[in-house]
Amino acid sequence: MNEVIIRELEKKDLWNGFLTSLDSLKEASSIDKEKADAIFEKINSSPDHIIAVAEIDGKIVGATTLLIESKFIHNGGLVGHIEDVVVDKNHQGQKIGEKIMKFLIEISKDRGCYKTILDCTDEVKPFYEKLGFKQVASELRLDNI
Amino acid sequence: MNEVIIRELEKKDLWNGFLTSLDSLKEASSIDKEKADAIFEKINSSPDHIIAVAEIDGKIVGATTLLIESKFIHNGGLVGHIEDVVVDKNHQGQKIGEKIMKFLIEISKDRGCYKTILDCTDEVKPFYEKLGFKQVASELRLDNI
Repeated sequence: MNEVIIRELEKKDLWNGFLTSLDSLKEASSIDKEKADAIFEKINSSPDHIIAVAEIDGKIVGATTLLIESKFIHNGGLVGHIEDVVVDKNHQGQKIGEKIMKFLIEISKDRGCYKTILDCTDEVKPFYEKLGFKQVASELRLDNI
Repeated sequence: MNEVIIRELEKKDLWNGFLTSLDSLKEASSIDKEKADAIFEKINSSPDHIIAVAEIDGKIVGATTLLIESKFIHNGGLVGHIEDVVVDKNHQGQKIGEKIMKFLIEISKDRGCYKTILDCTDEVKPFYEKLGFKQVASELRLDNI
């Protein structure tokens, strides 16, 4: 297997595998270029919104997001929220998701988050449990549209 | 019952019931004044981090947070995350939590979020189900410390 580089998202990645990787999760690569650029700029301007990507042979094949939330509780504590863990379907089973997760868990710890949390369905729970996550509650959703 | 005003958090609220309301959730009012002020300024500077409070007789008796997350999926969609729903223990059973939630759900809709999500334990699930939320997944947690 070729070398996997895990690093933060750069603008040049958007149309070089990042958006098509997200398609495995939910259609993303049909977005307007201008809109994608604007979202990138917004996310990139926040130190608390980090997207990590996996690069193989110069192409993005996976991504995950970490949001860092400031709270008043826990003596002004920080919480890391993991979102949108995705690996391109042609690169699944190569531990790429695990590598991206470990990269973001380290950032969450380094930034001083007292916990890292995520929501997931039963099918993928074992993947997160192997990384040390434990179920503590339920995710509830309200559709706004 | 006296009139309940639901509105966004202001700096003057911090030491006027807001932090002691959070104590019902997790110790918050022992925080340094300077640190609390700095967290307020950080949160207040972001249009995507909204804290709503309930005021009765000039005092804060409850609060809830809405984080708005920008995503690339869903055609550059927004997701509203509800956090830290809390009502002072002397004011529970007065529908204050419900009023704060409805205020933030409206903001989530107005801002164009395609869904509003939250994590909760089984004991409080009926409260959110009455507001239209449905369980869709599990919350997993990794303690960083």
